[in-house]
Amino acid sequence: MKPKILVIGSPLAVISQAEWVLFSSRYEVIEYAFATHDDFISSMKSGECFTIDGIMRVGINLPSGAVKIGQGWTRKFLDCFPPSLRVIVNFGHGFEQEDIEGLASRSIKFYNTTGGAEATATIGIYLIISAFRKLSIYERMVRNNEFLPALRDSAHSSRDPCGKSLGIVGMGVIGQVVAKQVAALNMQIHCLNRKSSRETLNDSKTQLPPMTLHDTLESLLQVVDCVILTCSYSKSTHHLLGNEAFFKMKPGMVVVNIARGKCIDEEALCRALETGVVSAAGLDVYENE
Amino acid sequence: MKPKILVIGSPLAVISQAEWVLFSSRYEVIEYAFATHDDFISSMKSGECFTIDGIMRVGINLPSGAVKIGQGWTRKFLDCFPPSLRVIVNFGHGFEQEDIEGLASRSIKFYNTTGGAEATATIGIYLIISAFRKLSIYERMVRNNEFLPALRDSAHSSRDPCGKSLGIVGMGVIGQVVAKQVAALNMQIHCLNRKSSRETLNDSKTQLPPMTLHDTLESLLQVVDCVILTCSYSKSTHHLLGNEAFFKMKPGMVVVNIARGKCIDEEALCRALETGVVSAAGLDVYENE
Repeated sequence: MKPKILVIGSPLAVISQAEWVLFSSRYEVIEYAFATHDDFISSMKSGECFTIDGIMRVGINLPSGAVKIGQGWTRKFLDCFPPSLRVIVNFGHGFEQEDIEGLASRSIKFYNTTGGAEATATIGIYLIISAFRKLSIYERMVRNNEFLPALRDSAHSSRDPCGKSLGIVGMGVIGQVVAKQVAALNMQIHCLNRKSSRETLNDSKTQLPPMTLHDTLESLLQVVDCVILTCSYSKSTHHLLGNEAFFKMKPGMVVVNIARGKCIDEEALCRALETGVVSAAGLDVYENE
Repeated sequence: MKPKILVIGSPLAVISQAEWVLFSSRYEVIEYAFATHDDFISSMKSGECFTIDGIMRVGINLPSGAVKIGQGWTRKFLDCFPPSLRVIVNFGHGFEQEDIEGLASRSIKFYNTTGGAEATATIGIYLIISAFRKLSIYERMVRNNEFLPALRDSAHSSRDPCGKSLGIVGMGVIGQVVAKQVAALNMQIHCLNRKSSRETLNDSKTQLPPMTLHDTLESLLQVVDCVILTCSYSKSTHHLLGNEAFFKMKPGMVVVNIARGKCIDEEALCRALETGVVSAAGLDVYENE
Protein backbone atom coordinates (compact mmCIF):
# COMPACT_ATOMS: atom_id res chain seq x y z
CA MET A 1 0.00 0.00 0.00
CA LYS A 2 1.31 3.41 -0.97
CA PRO A 3 1.76 5.98 1.80
CA LYS A 4 -1.07 8.50 1.83
CA ILE A 5 0.10 12.10 1.56
CA LEU A 6 -2.01 15.22 1.92
CA VAL A 7 -0.58 17.88 -0.38
CA ILE A 8 -1.58 21.43 0.53
CA GLY A 9 -1.17 23.52 -2.63
CA SER A 10 0.69 22.45 -5.77
CA PRO A 11 4.46 22.34 -6.23
CA LEU A 12 4.19 22.69 -10.04
CA ALA A 13 5.64 26.20 -9.99
CA VAL A 14 8.83 24.92 -8.35
CA ILE A 15 9.33 21.35 -9.67
CA SER A 16 9.00 19.82 -13.15
CA GLN A 17 5.92 18.01 -14.41
CA ALA A 18 8.00 14.81 -14.64
CA GLU A 19 9.00 15.01 -10.96
CA TRP A 20 5.38 15.52 -9.94
CA VAL A 21 4.24 12.52 -12.02
CA LEU A 22 6.94 10.41 -10.33
CA PHE A 23 5.82 11.62 -6.88
CA SER A 24 2.16 10.91 -7.65
CA SER A 25 3.02 7.38 -8.78
CA ARG A 26 4.83 6.58 -5.53
CA TYR A 27 2.32 8.06 -3.09
CA GLU A 28 -1.43 8.20 -2.79
CA VAL A 29 -1.93 11.94 -3.08
CA ILE A 30 -4.88 13.62 -1.40
CA GLU A 31 -5.53 17.14 -2.60
CA TYR A 32 -6.30 19.75 0.05
CA ALA A 33 -9.41 21.68 -0.97
CA PHE A 34 -11.15 22.80 2.22
CA ALA A 35 -13.16 26.01 2.29
CA THR A 36 -12.73 26.52 6.05
CA HIS A 37 -10.23 25.45 8.70
CA ASP A 38 -13.10 23.74 10.58
CA ASP A 39 -13.81 21.51 7.54
CA PHE A 40 -10.11 20.59 7.46
CA ILE A 41 -10.08 19.80 11.18
CA SER A 42 -13.23 17.66 10.90
CA SER A 43 -11.69 15.70 8.05
CA MET A 44 -8.50 15.12 10.07
CA LYS A 45 -10.59 13.85 13.01
CA SER A 46 -12.75 11.36 11.13
CA GLY A 47 -12.79 12.03 7.37
CA GLU A 48 -10.48 11.41 4.45
CA CYS A 49 -7.47 12.92 6.24
CA PHE A 50 -7.82 10.69 9.29
CA THR A 51 -5.53 8.04 7.75
CA ILE A 52 -2.81 10.21 6.16
CA ASP A 53 0.85 9.22 6.68
CA GLY A 54 2.30 12.58 5.72
CA ILE A 55 1.54 16.20 4.87
CA MET A 56 3.42 18.26 2.32
CA ARG A 57 2.57 21.93 2.65
CA VAL A 58 3.54 23.81 -0.51
CA GLY A 59 1.34 26.77 0.39
CA ILE A 60 1.13 28.22 -3.13
CA ASN A 61 -1.28 27.29 -5.96
CA LEU A 62 -4.19 26.26 -3.71
CA PRO A 63 -7.37 25.10 -5.50
CA SER A 64 -9.89 27.92 -5.84
CA GLY A 65 -12.06 28.23 -2.74
CA ALA A 66 -9.55 26.47 -0.46
CA VAL A 67 -8.60 28.38 2.68
CA LYS A 68 -4.92 29.17 3.19
CA ILE A 69 -2.73 27.22 5.63
CA GLY A 70 -0.06 29.70 6.69
CA GLN A 71 2.97 29.99 8.96
CA GLY A 72 2.41 28.60 12.46
CA TRP A 73 -0.01 25.99 11.10
CA THR A 74 1.54 23.06 12.98
CA ARG A 75 0.91 24.91 16.26
CA LYS A 76 -2.70 25.62 15.27
CA PHE A 77 -3.51 22.07 14.16
CA LEU A 78 -1.25 19.97 16.45
CA ASP A 79 -4.10 18.58 18.56
CA CYS A 80 -6.15 17.72 15.46
CA PHE A 81 -3.47 15.84 13.52
CA PRO A 82 -4.55 12.18 13.12
CA PRO A 83 -2.60 9.42 14.95
CA SER A 84 -1.47 8.03 11.56
CA LEU A 85 0.59 11.16 10.74
CA ARG A 86 4.34 10.47 10.75
CA VAL A 87 6.00 13.18 8.69
CA ILE A 88 5.48 16.80 7.61
CA VAL A 89 7.39 18.49 4.79
CA ASN A 90 6.95 22.26 4.87
CA PHE A 91 7.91 24.63 2.03
CA GLY A 92 9.43 27.34 4.21
CA HIS A 93 12.35 28.50 6.31
CA GLY A 94 12.87 28.74 10.04
CA PHE A 95 11.28 26.75 12.82
CA GLU A 96 10.27 29.41 15.31
CA GLN A 97 6.64 29.66 14.27
CA GLU A 98 6.01 25.90 14.20
CA ASP A 99 5.50 23.65 17.24
CA ILE A 100 8.61 21.52 16.78
CA GLU A 101 8.55 20.22 20.38
CA GLY A 102 4.87 19.33 20.19
CA LEU A 103 5.38 17.49 16.92
CA ALA A 104 8.37 15.62 18.38
CA SER A 105 6.32 14.59 21.44
CA ARG A 106 3.83 13.00 19.00
CA SER A 107 6.68 11.38 16.99
CA ILE A 108 5.88 13.44 13.90
CA LYS A 109 9.04 14.33 11.96
CA PHE A 110 9.12 17.88 10.61
CA TYR A 111 11.25 19.06 7.66
CA ASN A 112 11.57 22.43 5.98
CA THR A 113 12.60 22.55 2.35
CA THR A 114 16.13 23.89 1.96
CA GLY A 115 16.33 25.04 -1.65
CA GLY A 116 16.91 28.70 -0.85
CA ALA A 117 20.33 28.42 0.82
CA GLU A 118 22.37 29.76 -2.12
CA ALA A 119 19.91 32.57 -2.81
CA THR A 120 19.95 33.64 0.85
CA ALA A 121 23.73 33.39 1.09
CA THR A 122 24.07 35.49 -2.06
CA ILE A 123 22.05 38.26 -0.41
CA GLY A 124 24.54 38.01 2.46
CA ILE A 125 27.48 38.54 0.09
CA TYR A 126 25.66 41.47 -1.51
CA LEU A 127 25.02 43.10 1.88
CA ILE A 128 28.62 42.52 3.04
CA ILE A 129 30.01 44.25 -0.08
CA SER A 130 27.37 46.98 0.07
CA ALA A 131 28.00 47.77 3.74
CA PHE A 132 31.82 47.79 3.50
CA ARG A 133 31.78 49.91 0.35
CA LYS A 134 28.73 52.00 1.40
CA LEU A 135 27.39 51.47 -2.12
CA SER A 136 23.75 52.10 -1.28
CA ILE A 137 24.63 55.60 -0.04
CA TYR A 138 26.70 56.37 -3.14
CA GLU A 139 24.10 54.99 -5.53
CA ARG A 140 21.50 57.29 -3.98
CA MET A 141 23.93 60.23 -4.29
CA VAL A 142 24.61 59.45 -7.98
CA ARG A 143 20.86 59.16 -8.67
CA ASN A 144 20.56 62.56 -6.98
CA ASN A 145 23.06 64.06 -9.47
CA GLU A 146 25.89 64.02 -6.94
CA PHE A 147 28.33 61.92 -8.96
CA LEU A 148 31.50 63.80 -8.06
CA PRO A 149 30.75 64.31 -4.34
CA ALA A 150 29.98 60.57 -4.10
CA LEU A 151 33.19 59.67 -5.93
CA ARG A 152 35.30 61.92 -3.70
CA ASP A 153 33.72 60.74 -0.46
CA SER A 154 33.95 57.08 -1.45
CA ALA A 155 37.71 57.42 -1.85
CA HIS A 156 37.88 58.07 1.90
CA SER A 157 35.01 56.14 3.55
CA SER A 158 34.68 53.12 1.31
CA ARG A 159 36.53 49.94 2.35
CA ASP A 160 36.87 46.70 0.40
CA PRO A 161 35.90 43.44 2.16
CA CYS A 162 38.93 41.74 0.55
CA GLY A 163 41.42 40.86 3.29
CA LYS A 164 39.00 41.69 6.13
CA SER A 165 37.74 39.14 8.64
CA LEU A 166 34.17 37.85 8.82
CA GLY A 167 32.48 36.15 11.76
CA ILE A 168 29.72 33.76 10.69
CA VAL A 169 27.19 33.11 13.47
CA GLY A 170 25.31 29.92 12.53
CA MET A 171 27.15 27.22 10.57
CA GLY A 172 24.06 25.57 9.06
CA VAL A 173 23.45 25.13 5.34
CA ILE A 174 23.32 28.90 4.69
CA GLY A 175 26.35 29.67 6.88
CA GLN A 176 28.36 27.05 5.00
CA VAL A 177 27.48 28.53 1.60
CA VAL A 178 28.38 32.01 2.91
CA ALA A 179 31.76 30.65 4.07
CA LYS A 180 32.56 29.26 0.62
CA GLN A 181 31.46 32.42 -1.17
CA VAL A 182 33.35 34.89 1.04
CA ALA A 183 36.49 32.75 0.91
CA ALA A 184 36.58 33.68 -2.80
CA LEU A 185 36.55 37.34 -1.70
CA ASN A 186 39.71 36.57 0.32
CA MET A 187 37.97 37.22 3.64
CA GLN A 188 39.30 35.43 6.71
CA ILE A 189 36.54 33.40 8.32
CA HIS A 190 35.75 33.06 12.02
CA CYS A 191 32.94 31.04 13.59
CA LEU A 192 31.76 29.67 16.91
CA ASN A 193 33.23 26.40 18.19
CA ARG A 194 29.82 24.78 18.68
CA LYS A 195 29.39 21.08 19.24
CA SER A 196 26.68 21.09 16.56
CA SER A 197 28.97 22.51 13.88
CA ARG A 198 32.24 20.74 14.70
CA GLU A 199 31.24 17.69 12.68
CA THR A 200 30.47 19.89 9.68
CA LEU A 201 33.78 21.73 10.00
CA ASN A 202 35.79 18.51 10.15
CA ASP A 203 33.92 16.79 7.32
CA SER A 204 36.10 16.95 4.22
CA LYS A 205 32.99 16.45 2.05
CA THR A 206 31.66 19.91 2.91
CA GLN A 207 34.88 21.44 1.45
CA LEU A 208 34.68 24.40 3.80
CA PRO A 209 37.53 26.94 3.81
CA PRO A 210 39.78 27.21 6.89
CA MET A 211 38.18 28.99 9.86
CA THR A 212 39.25 30.40 13.21
CA LEU A 213 37.09 28.93 15.98
CA HIS A 214 35.87 30.91 19.01
CA ASP A 215 34.47 29.55 22.25
CA THR A 216 32.22 32.55 22.82
CA LEU A 217 30.35 35.11 20.72
CA GLU A 218 32.17 37.81 22.72
CA SER A 219 35.58 36.48 21.66
CA LEU A 220 34.47 36.46 18.01
CA LEU A 221 32.97 39.97 18.16
CA GLN A 222 36.19 41.35 19.63
CA VAL A 223 38.31 40.51 16.60
CA VAL A 224 36.27 40.39 13.37
CA ASP A 225 35.68 43.32 11.00
CA CYS A 226 32.21 42.09 10.10
CA VAL A 227 29.66 39.75 11.67
CA ILE A 228 26.94 38.02 9.65
CA LEU A 229 24.00 36.30 11.35
CA THR A 230 22.92 33.08 9.61
CA CYS A 231 21.56 31.33 12.69
CA SER A 232 18.02 30.11 13.33
CA TYR A 233 15.74 32.14 15.59
CA SER A 234 14.93 30.82 19.06
CA LYS A 235 14.85 32.03 22.64
CA SER A 236 18.64 31.68 22.74
CA THR A 237 19.17 33.84 19.64
CA HIS A 238 16.53 36.48 20.49
CA HIS A 239 18.36 39.85 20.48
CA LEU A 240 21.67 38.00 20.11
CA LEU A 241 23.12 41.34 19.07
CA GLY A 242 21.88 43.71 21.76
CA ASN A 243 23.37 46.31 24.08
CA GLU A 244 25.77 43.84 25.69
CA ALA A 245 27.14 42.59 22.35
CA PHE A 246 27.48 46.08 20.87
CA PHE A 247 29.28 47.20 24.04
CA LYS A 248 31.90 44.47 23.64
CA MET A 249 32.46 44.39 19.90
CA LYS A 250 35.42 45.76 17.97
CA PRO A 251 34.55 49.37 17.12
CA GLY A 252 33.75 50.05 13.47
CA MET A 253 32.15 46.63 12.98
CA VAL A 254 30.03 45.93 9.92
CA VAL A 255 26.84 44.07 10.89
CA VAL A 256 24.89 41.94 8.38
CA ASN A 257 21.70 40.01 9.14
CA ILE A 258 20.22 37.42 6.78
CA ALA A 259 18.73 35.36 9.65
CA ARG A 260 15.64 36.70 11.45
CA GLY A 261 15.01 40.32 12.34
CA LYS A 262 14.44 39.53 16.01
CA CYS A 263 18.04 38.23 16.34
CA ILE A 264 19.02 41.92 16.56
CA ASP A 265 17.77 44.51 19.05
CA GLU A 266 17.16 47.26 16.49
CA GLU A 267 17.07 50.09 19.01
CA ALA A 268 20.48 49.02 20.31
CA LEU A 269 21.74 48.72 16.71
CA CYS A 270 20.61 52.28 15.94
CA ARG A 271 22.48 53.57 18.98
CA ALA A 272 25.58 51.58 17.97
CA LEU A 273 25.39 53.09 14.47
CA GLU A 274 25.00 56.60 15.90
CA THR A 275 28.02 56.22 18.18
CA GLY A 276 30.14 54.58 15.45
CA VAL A 277 30.53 51.24 17.25
CA VAL A 278 28.87 49.83 14.14
CA SER A 279 30.09 51.51 10.95
CA ALA A 280 27.46 50.05 8.64
CA ALA A 281 24.60 47.55 8.75
CA GLY A 282 23.22 45.42 5.92
CA LEU A 283 19.78 44.09 6.82
CA ASP A 284 17.77 41.58 4.79
CA VAL A 285 15.24 41.36 7.63
CA TYR A 286 13.65 43.64 10.20
CA GLU A 287 12.55 43.09 13.77
CA ASN A 288 8.94 43.85 12.75
CA GLU A 289 8.49 43.13 9.07
CA MET B 1 75.42 53.71 -8.68
CA LYS B 2 71.79 53.54 -7.63
CA PRO B 3 69.13 54.12 -10.31
CA LYS B 4 67.72 57.65 -10.09
CA ILE B 5 63.95 57.74 -9.68
CA LEU B 6 61.73 60.81 -9.81
CA VAL B 7 58.81 60.23 -7.42
CA ILE B 8 55.77 62.41 -8.15
CA GLY B 9 53.78 62.54 -4.90
CA SER B 10 54.26 60.27 -1.90
CA PRO B 11 53.10 56.67 -1.60
CA LEU B 12 52.98 56.83 2.22
CA ALA B 13 49.18 56.65 2.29
CA VAL B 14 49.24 53.32 0.47
CA ILE B 15 52.46 51.58 1.57
CA SER B 16 54.11 51.16 4.97
CA GLN B 17 56.92 53.36 6.28
CA ALA B 18 59.22 50.32 6.26
CA GLU B 19 58.58 49.66 2.56
CA TRP B 20 59.30 53.28 1.74
CA VAL B 21 62.57 53.21 3.71
CA LEU B 22 63.61 50.08 1.79
CA PHE B 23 62.72 51.73 -1.52
CA SER B 24 64.66 54.87 -0.63
CA SER B 25 67.73 52.82 0.29
CA ARG B 26 67.75 51.04 -3.08
CA TYR B 27 67.16 54.04 -5.31
CA GLU B 28 68.28 57.63 -5.46
CA VAL B 29 64.94 59.33 -4.97
CA ILE B 30 64.29 62.76 -6.44
CA GLU B 31 61.23 64.49 -5.06
CA TYR B 32 58.98 66.24 -7.55
CA ALA B 33 58.22 69.76 -6.29
CA PHE B 34 57.67 71.96 -9.36
CA ALA B 35 55.30 74.91 -9.20
CA THR B 36 54.58 74.89 -12.94
CA HIS B 37 54.66 72.33 -15.73
CA ASP B 38 57.18 74.53 -17.57
CA ASP B 39 59.60 74.30 -14.61
CA PHE B 40 59.23 70.52 -14.73
CA ILE B 41 59.84 70.43 -18.49
CA SER B 42 62.92 72.66 -18.17
CA SER B 43 64.34 70.39 -15.48
CA MET B 44 63.76 67.30 -17.67
CA LYS B 45 65.56 69.01 -20.55
CA SER B 46 68.69 70.11 -18.75
CA GLY B 47 68.19 70.15 -14.96
CA GLU B 48 68.08 67.61 -12.15
CA CYS B 49 65.59 65.38 -13.99
CA PHE B 50 67.73 65.14 -17.13
CA THR B 51 69.50 62.02 -15.81
CA ILE B 52 66.60 60.09 -14.25
CA ASP B 53 66.26 56.37 -14.95
CA GLY B 54 62.64 56.07 -13.89
CA ILE B 55 59.52 57.97 -12.85
CA MET B 56 57.02 56.75 -10.26
CA ARG B 57 53.83 58.81 -10.41
CA VAL B 58 51.84 58.37 -7.20
CA GLY B 59 49.77 61.45 -7.86
CA ILE B 60 48.59 61.95 -4.26
CA ASN B 61 50.37 63.75 -1.40
CA LEU B 62 52.25 66.25 -3.56
CA PRO B 63 54.48 68.76 -1.70
CA SER B 64 52.69 72.06 -1.13
CA GLY B 65 53.02 74.35 -4.12
CA ALA B 66 53.77 71.54 -6.56
CA VAL B 67 51.55 71.46 -9.64
CA LYS B 68 49.55 68.29 -10.26
CA ILE B 69 50.57 65.73 -12.90
CA GLY B 70 47.31 64.10 -13.94
CA GLN B 71 45.94 61.49 -16.34
CA GLY B 72 47.32 61.77 -19.88
CA TRP B 73 50.64 63.06 -18.54
CA THR B 74 52.81 60.72 -20.63
CA ARG B 75 51.17 62.12 -23.78
CA LYS B 76 51.75 65.69 -22.60
CA PHE B 77 55.41 65.20 -21.63
CA LEU B 78 56.53 62.50 -24.11
CA ASP B 79 58.74 64.82 -26.17
CA CYS B 80 60.34 66.30 -23.03
CA PHE B 81 61.28 63.02 -21.28
CA PRO B 82 65.09 62.80 -21.01
CA PRO B 83 66.99 60.13 -23.05
CA SER B 84 68.02 58.42 -19.78
CA LEU B 85 64.39 57.49 -18.90
CA ARG B 86 63.79 53.74 -19.11
CA VAL B 87 60.72 52.98 -16.98
CA ILE B 88 57.53 54.63 -15.73
CA VAL B 89 55.38 53.25 -12.90
CA ASN B 90 51.98 54.92 -12.79
CA PHE B 91 49.51 54.68 -9.90
CA GLY B 92 46.39 54.29 -12.00
CA HIS B 93 44.25 52.06 -14.16
CA GLY B 94 43.75 51.85 -17.90
CA PHE B 95 46.07 52.80 -20.71
CA GLU B 96 43.81 54.75 -23.04
CA GLN B 97 44.84 58.21 -21.82
CA GLU B 98 48.59 57.54 -21.89
CA ASP B 99 50.78 57.45 -25.00
CA ILE B 100 51.78 53.78 -24.78
CA GLU B 101 52.89 53.61 -28.43
CA GLY B 102 54.98 56.76 -28.13
CA LEU B 103 56.64 55.46 -24.96
CA ALA B 104 57.33 52.11 -26.63
CA SER B 105 58.91 53.85 -29.65
CA ARG B 106 61.29 55.51 -27.21
CA SER B 107 61.94 52.19 -25.39
CA ILE B 108 60.38 53.48 -22.18
CA LYS B 109 58.53 50.71 -20.34
CA PHE B 110 55.19 51.73 -18.82
CA TYR B 111 53.45 49.98 -15.91
CA ASN B 112 50.23 50.72 -14.10
CA THR B 113 49.92 49.60 -10.49
CA THR B 114 47.48 46.72 -10.17
CA GLY B 115 46.43 46.88 -6.53
CA GLY B 116 42.79 47.59 -7.24
CA ALA B 117 41.92 44.34 -9.03
CA GLU B 118 40.10 42.72 -6.09
CA ALA B 119 38.23 45.91 -5.24
CA THR B 120 37.10 46.35 -8.86
CA ALA B 121 36.16 42.69 -9.22
CA THR B 122 34.14 42.91 -5.99
CA ILE B 123 32.08 45.75 -7.48
CA GLY B 124 31.48 43.43 -10.44
CA ILE B 125 30.13 40.70 -8.13
CA TYR B 126 27.93 43.27 -6.37
CA LEU B 127 26.51 44.52 -9.67
CA ILE B 128 25.90 40.96 -10.95
CA ILE B 129 23.91 40.07 -7.82
CA SER B 130 22.13 43.42 -7.77
CA ALA B 131 21.09 43.20 -11.44
CA PHE B 132 19.89 39.58 -11.31
CA ARG B 133 17.97 40.17 -8.08
CA LYS B 134 16.90 43.74 -8.97
CA LEU B 135 17.92 44.70 -5.44
CA SER B 136 18.44 48.39 -6.14
CA ILE B 137 14.81 48.69 -7.27
CA TYR B 138 13.52 46.85 -4.20
CA GLU B 139 15.71 48.81 -1.79
CA ARG B 140 14.28 52.04 -3.17
CA MET B 141 10.75 50.64 -2.82
CA VAL B 142 11.37 49.62 0.81
CA ARG B 143 12.85 53.06 1.61
CA ASN B 144 9.65 54.46 0.05
CA ASN B 145 7.52 52.46 2.53
CA GLU B 146 6.62 49.84 -0.08
CA PHE B 147 7.92 46.81 1.79
CA LEU B 148 5.10 44.42 0.88
CA PRO B 149 4.75 45.43 -2.80
CA ALA B 150 8.54 45.01 -3.17
CA LEU B 151 8.45 41.60 -1.46
CA ARG B 152 5.58 40.39 -3.66
CA ASP B 153 7.10 41.66 -6.89
CA SER B 154 10.54 40.26 -6.07
CA ALA B 155 9.05 36.76 -5.74
CA HIS B 156 8.27 36.94 -9.48
CA SER B 157 10.94 39.13 -11.12
CA SER B 158 13.99 38.43 -9.00
CA ARG B 159 16.42 35.73 -10.21
CA ASP B 160 19.43 34.32 -8.40
CA PRO B 161 22.79 34.30 -10.25
CA CYS B 162 23.51 30.84 -8.79
CA GLY B 163 23.48 28.29 -11.63
CA LYS B 164 23.36 30.97 -14.36
CA SER B 165 26.12 31.47 -16.93
CA LEU B 166 28.47 34.47 -17.06
CA GLY B 167 30.52 35.66 -20.01
CA ILE B 168 33.68 37.50 -18.97
CA VAL B 169 35.02 39.82 -21.69
CA GLY B 170 38.66 40.56 -20.81
CA MET B 171 40.70 37.91 -19.02
CA GLY B 172 43.27 40.28 -17.50
CA VAL B 173 43.97 40.55 -13.75
CA ILE B 174 40.45 41.83 -12.97
CA GLY B 175 38.72 39.28 -15.21
CA GLN B 176 40.63 36.49 -13.50
CA VAL B 177 39.58 37.64 -10.02
CA VAL B 178 35.95 37.93 -11.21
CA ALA B 179 36.17 34.34 -12.53
CA LYS B 180 37.34 33.02 -9.15
CA GLN B 181 34.73 34.98 -7.22
CA VAL B 182 31.72 34.03 -9.36
CA ALA B 183 32.80 30.37 -9.42
CA ALA B 184 31.99 30.44 -5.69
CA LEU B 185 28.49 31.64 -6.64
CA ASN B 186 28.19 28.48 -8.79
CA MET B 187 28.02 30.47 -12.01
CA GLN B 188 29.21 28.77 -15.21
CA ILE B 189 31.95 30.81 -16.80
CA HIS B 190 32.44 31.60 -20.49
CA CYS B 191 35.19 33.70 -22.04
CA LEU B 192 36.77 34.53 -25.38
CA ASN B 193 39.38 32.17 -26.81
CA ARG B 194 41.96 34.92 -27.27
CA LYS B 195 45.61 34.21 -27.97
CA SER B 196 46.50 36.68 -25.19
CA SER B 197 44.52 34.83 -22.54
CA ARG B 198 45.14 31.20 -23.52
CA GLU B 199 48.42 31.14 -21.59
CA THR B 200 46.64 32.42 -18.50
CA LEU B 201 43.85 29.87 -18.84
CA ASN B 202 46.30 26.97 -19.17
CA ASP B 203 48.57 28.11 -16.35
CA SER B 204 47.82 25.96 -13.30
CA LYS B 205 49.34 28.67 -11.07
CA THR B 206 46.44 31.03 -11.75
CA GLN B 207 44.02 28.41 -10.34
CA LEU B 208 41.22 29.61 -12.57
CA PRO B 209 37.92 27.70 -12.56
CA PRO B 210 36.87 25.76 -15.69
CA MET B 211 35.60 27.96 -18.54
CA THR B 212 33.86 27.50 -21.87
CA LEU B 213 35.85 29.21 -24.63
CA HIS B 214 34.25 31.10 -27.55
CA ASP B 215 35.91 32.13 -30.81
CA THR B 216 33.74 35.23 -31.20
CA LEU B 217 31.93 37.70 -28.96
CA GLU B 218 28.76 36.89 -30.89
CA SER B 219 28.99 33.20 -29.99
CA LEU B 220 29.44 34.11 -26.31
CA LEU B 221 26.57 36.63 -26.29
CA GLN B 222 24.20 34.07 -27.81
CA VAL B 223 24.43 31.69 -24.84
CA VAL B 224 25.27 33.45 -21.57
CA ASP B 225 22.72 34.83 -19.07
CA CYS B 226 25.01 37.71 -18.13
CA VAL B 227 27.97 39.46 -19.71
CA ILE B 228 30.54 41.42 -17.69
CA LEU B 229 33.04 43.75 -19.37
CA THR B 230 36.48 43.71 -17.71
CA CYS B 231 38.49 44.57 -20.82
CA SER B 232 40.73 47.58 -21.39
CA TYR B 233 39.46 50.46 -23.51
CA SER B 234 40.89 50.95 -26.98
CA LYS B 235 39.67 51.57 -30.52
CA SER B 236 38.82 47.87 -30.75
CA THR B 237 36.66 47.90 -27.59
CA HIS B 238 34.95 51.26 -28.27
CA HIS B 239 31.17 50.57 -28.19
CA LEU B 240 31.92 46.83 -27.99
CA LEU B 241 28.32 46.46 -26.85
CA GLY B 242 26.38 48.49 -29.41
CA ASN B 243 23.39 47.97 -31.69
CA GLU B 244 24.96 44.99 -33.45
CA ALA B 245 25.79 43.16 -30.22
CA PHE B 246 22.41 43.86 -28.60
CA PHE B 247 20.70 42.63 -31.78
CA LYS B 248 22.50 39.28 -31.57
CA MET B 249 22.49 38.57 -27.84
CA LYS B 250 20.31 36.11 -25.96
CA PRO B 251 17.16 38.03 -24.95
CA GLY B 252 16.86 38.84 -21.23
CA MET B 253 20.63 39.27 -20.83
CA VAL B 254 22.05 40.97 -17.74
CA VAL B 255 24.80 43.45 -18.68
CA VAL B 256 27.48 44.54 -16.21
CA ASN B 257 30.29 47.00 -16.95
CA ILE B 258 33.27 47.50 -14.64
CA ALA B 259 35.62 48.38 -17.54
CA ARG B 260 35.27 51.81 -19.19
CA GLY B 261 32.00 53.58 -19.93
CA LYS B 262 32.84 54.01 -23.61
CA CYS B 263 32.94 50.22 -24.10
CA ILE B 264 29.12 50.44 -24.21
CA ASP B 265 26.98 52.53 -26.57
CA GLU B 266 24.62 53.86 -23.88
CA GLU B 267 21.90 54.92 -26.30
CA ALA B 268 21.83 51.40 -27.73
CA LEU B 269 21.81 49.97 -24.18
CA CYS B 270 18.80 52.12 -23.25
CA ARG B 271 16.90 50.87 -26.29
CA ALA B 272 17.86 47.26 -25.45
CA LEU B 273 16.57 47.78 -21.89
CA GLU B 274 13.33 49.29 -23.18
CA THR B 275 12.69 46.38 -25.55
CA GLY B 276 13.65 43.77 -22.96
CA VAL B 277 16.65 42.43 -24.90
CA VAL B 278 18.59 43.44 -21.78
CA SER B 279 16.69 42.68 -18.57
CA ALA B 280 18.98 44.62 -16.23
CA ALA B 281 22.24 46.57 -16.35
CA GLY B 282 24.77 47.12 -13.56
CA LEU B 283 27.08 50.00 -14.42
CA ASP B 284 30.14 51.05 -12.43
CA VAL B 285 31.06 53.48 -15.20
CA TYR B 286 29.33 55.82 -17.64
CA GLU B 287 30.10 56.85 -21.18
CA ASN B 288 30.54 60.45 -20.04
CA GLU B 289 31.48 60.51 -16.37
